[in-house]
Amino acid sequence: QTSQVTIAGTMDLALRQVKNGDLGTLRSQVSGSNLTSKLVVRGREDLGNGLHAGFFLDATIGANTGTANAPFWDRRSTVELGHQRYGEMRLGRDWAPTHLVWSGFDPFTTLGIASANSFRNVFVSRALGQAFGASAAAAAANPTLRVNNAVEYFLPNTLGGVYGALMVSAGEGGTAGSGATRGAGGRLGWTNKTVDVALARYQTRNANAGRSFTDQAWGASYNFGPARVSVAQRKWSYVSDTTTNTLLGVQIPVGAGTIKLSYVHADQSGATAALNANDASLWGAGYVHNLSKRTALYGHVARLSNQAGAAFSVPGGVATSGLSTATNYFGGKASTAFEFGVRHNF
Amino acid sequence: QTSQVTIAGTMDLALRQVKNGDLGTLRSQVSGSNLTSKLVVRGREDLGNGLHAGFFLDATIGANTGTANAPFWDRRSTVELGHQRYGEMRLGRDWAPTHLVWSGFDPFTTLGIASANSFRNVFVSRALGQAFGASAAAAAANPTLRVNNAVEYFLPNTLGGVYGALMVSAGEGGTAGSGATRGAGGRLGWTNKTVDVALARYQTRNANAGRSFTDQAWGASYNFGPARVSVAQRKWSYVSDTTTNTLLGVQIPVGAGTIKLSYVHADQSGATAALNANDASLWGAGYVHNLSKRTALYGHVARLSNQAGAAFSVPGGVATSGLSTATNYFGGKASTAFEFGVRHNF
Amino acid sequence: QTSQVTIAGTMDLALRQVKNGDLGTLRSQVSGSNLTSKLVVRGREDLGNGLHAGFFLDATIGANTGTANAPFWDRRSTVELGHQRYGEMRLGRDWAPTHLVWSGFDPFTTLGIASANSFRNVFVSRALGQAFGASAAAAAANPTLRVNNAVEYFLPNTLGGVYGALMVSAGEGGTAGSGATRGAGGRLGWTNKTVDVALARYQTRNANAGRSFTDQAWGASYNFGPARVSVAQRKWSYVSDTTTNTLLGVQIPVGAGTIKLSYVHADQSGATAALNANDASLWGAGYVHNLSKRTALYGHVARLSNQAGAAFSVPGGVATSGLSTATNYFGGKASTAFEFGVRHNF
Repeated sequence: QTSQVTIAGTMDLALRQVKNGDLGTLRSQVSGSNLTSKLVVRGREDLGNGLHAGFFLDATIGANTGTANAPFWDRRSTVELGHQRYGEMRLGRDWAPTHLVWSGFDPFTTLGIASANSFRNVFVSRALGQAFGASAAAAAANPTLRVNNAVEYFLPNTLGGVYGALMVSAGEGGTAGSGATRGAGGRLGWTNKTVDVALARYQTRNANAGRSFTDQAWGASYNFGPARVSVAQRKWSYVSDTTTNTLLGVQIPVGAGTIKLSYVHADQSGATAALNANDASLWGAGYVHNLSKRTALYGHVARLSNQAGAAFSVPGGVATSGLSTATNYFGGKASTAFEFGVRHNF
Repeated sequence: QTSQVTIAGTMDLALRQVKNGDLGTLRSQVSGSNLTSKLVVRGREDLGNGLHAGFFLDATIGANTGTANAPFWDRRSTVELGHQRYGEMRLGRDWAPTHLVWSGFDPFTTLGIASANSFRNVFVSRALGQAFGASAAAAAANPTLRVNNAVEYFLPNTLGGVYGALMVSAGEGGTAGSGATRGAGGRLGWTNKTVDVALARYQTRNANAGRSFTDQAWGASYNFGPARVSVAQRKWSYVSDTTTNTLLGVQIPVGAGTIKLSYVHADQSGATAALNANDASLWGAGYVHNLSKRTALYGHVARLSNQAGAAFSVPGGVATSGLSTATNYFGGKASTAFEFGVRHNF
Repeated sequence: QTSQVTIAGTMDLALRQVKNGDLGTLRSQVSGSNLTSKLVVRGREDLGNGLHAGFFLDATIGANTGTANAPFWDRRSTVELGHQRYGEMRLGRDWAPTHLVWSGFDPFTTLGIASANSFRNVFVSRALGQAFGASAAAAAANPTLRVNNAVEYFLPNTLGGVYGALMVSAGEGGTAGSGATRGAGGRLGWTNKTVDVALARYQTRNANAGRSFTDQAWGASYNFGPARVSVAQRKWSYVSDTTTNTLLGVQIPVGAGTIKLSYVHADQSGATAALNANDASLWGAGYVHNLSKRTALYGHVARLSNQAGAAFSVPGGVATSGLSTATNYFGGKASTAFEFGVRHNF
């Protein structure tokens, strides 16, 4: 047995300051604002006749405190069998297809203070909280980021720029909020070097009360040369509740670096007029300066503004509450933040 | 300090369906039905004069959900000093010698739905449950699979096919059911390419109430050429309770694959006539198709039949109970299952 | 992305016997008495113009039972940017500068039964217990060993033997006893091949009740050729409580091995006369026999003597208590111990 294993990963650490309205300012060190700090173990075997096998293990590192996540291989844990013409079958824990589309059009790839995932919050998005439970466990395990026990089929990369995948998973008698998702969906896209368009849908059938939760995303980008402009939308629906995230992003190459700008808006609907007014917006800007292909310095600024009683916040600030009777009630307040750090791929 | 480390392992994922009597059918994705999904870090240093040093770390991967086990390096964590003529000393956490003999004669190497370890169950085997406690902790930590804090001596591989090892471990003031095993034992075998015979014994002195628990195994196999036939037995004894597992196995090479057949019977004795009648049998069949030396596809079927009030079941089904008043009482019922998957060594 | 990752580490296992006064004798297997059992993943990238980037991940292995620690990368988790003339910036979880100085002058590098950290015990050192809490969580997380969320600057190695580092960390709204340390400090030393002198200080501003805790260390060693003699002191201060550790160490090379001798005394002061009398001493002796640059056999003996009601003990013995009403009260008693083992670097 010869070993052909690649060990790779990222260490990304930053200093962050978050000011949550008049609740105060907190300074912290954080992991993974440009790219997630992680350890990857992966490999590929050529089986002949166009066939290959492979595997991929990917574990988040909480680099500022040395932590691992639970599950340890939280980002991906898969085995693959593929054919260069017929595509690939993949089994295991993998990314939700909707996340891959959404993340791909965010200049900040859903990381750091300007993340387009700032509203992916079971405590504040009513659609997510109702569907999976407003708990820390549901925040970690709900299938809007990754999916356990998945069976996937990927299109081959020989289709003239068309790409896509199908995914199904069995609930195994558990609940979607605890990571046992009974769901099905997929994504489909097309790209040449200039244009990229994609859409995705993943429907979970065992959300709370055995009801369906639908996660949909689409996006498009155009590379003008001096700038890549993207627009995307992601919609979460559970019974009558809907949260719709809309994203505008710009990336501007400048010398050895890239300027990033983004705007994300969350619109909640389907509940009472008061709850439907709990919308929020996020402005983000950043600059990444590449020291090499693997190492970069970066800085981000962001401002998240809540409307009505919405209580979203940039992570890393003082504790906030969406409960109007709490002393740290944050409804309608704004989070402002900046961070700068270093990212090193290995 | 130069590093001479080997990273290796396995990713093995399968789809399984288990029907537990009339309690219903469950479909799931499972990890490690052909070979355990795992990450191995190991190395060896030649010290000269026939001496070598080495180490071995082996961690289970729950590949379908990305989990690690607790302890992380649950399968093996050892350091070794060896001499080519005098054998090897090994310290750390390692496999129980009885398991190695038992597993070696099982065509399914105690994995998957047809595992010869199907009756290694502290909740249903009275000998195990009485000795270590019928709890999830005891199920994970009892010394019928691996032993903590072990000191071992291994015979060198220059004895004309004779192989073997001695193992002792100190209880360190803890309990065997929590993994602090005060025990001693070993295994001895002989093989040429055609015949393999082995026996093993491991006695734990700090089982419940400070009493002894004895784990014994023997096995023999003969390779006829067109088939390898094996027979083995494993007996667990605690005070008057005994569970005896008997195995018949056949492996038939066919082209690039292997057909596997097995029958395992568990016989409980030493308690009341009613409890002694709680026996069970397992029939298993499978086929492994090698795509390469490292990668294989496989399929298994199995049927586990309980007698009297025995409530063993194939893992991965709906929850069952051995309690006759429970609504999901499973005494005397049968589990039927199939699974197919892919295994990739790296 | 090419990967230039080094996998390294240590597996070190030993057999230990500890006799805690008349409370009894316990034999155990232990991990890391010569060097900590660990897995290291690290790398370095040359960025040109004298600049480099790098990372370092270091995880303790509980080799006798296969455990990992929490946090997983408990020993170190850092990313670095450095310049050969201007020094290095480092972010992440790293060693307390005071520990590095203290450990560097201990012949046993604070490991095993003769460790100079034997009195680093929140349950018995009043200064530590008052500052961080006498709990298992505070024992693991207090900043006398490692510091989370650290920002560090290291002097370059071009200063004629002068070495040193500065470290600051933000409390992030947490407590020092839980590993969220708001602190600042550093170390400075000078060495040629014969002499080594160093001092360090790290002040934590969010110890219990928001008060300051000060950790100070200095040390000096002289290499006579046939022996290296070292002296060092480490002082912990919280409000009026102080614990002062004083160390004398000798290392004598003999053929392929090294003889080690050490004496450590802990002096508590600043409380009542009764509590101030709770001092203790530790004598240690050992021999390390190198089988190669990577692999060694070793043996240690140690005797820890408590004065008045002090209840320190060598780890690995039967449970002791500092509570005078407990049946296993250990005040004023002595721990004697020996251990021998094997260490293998990979």
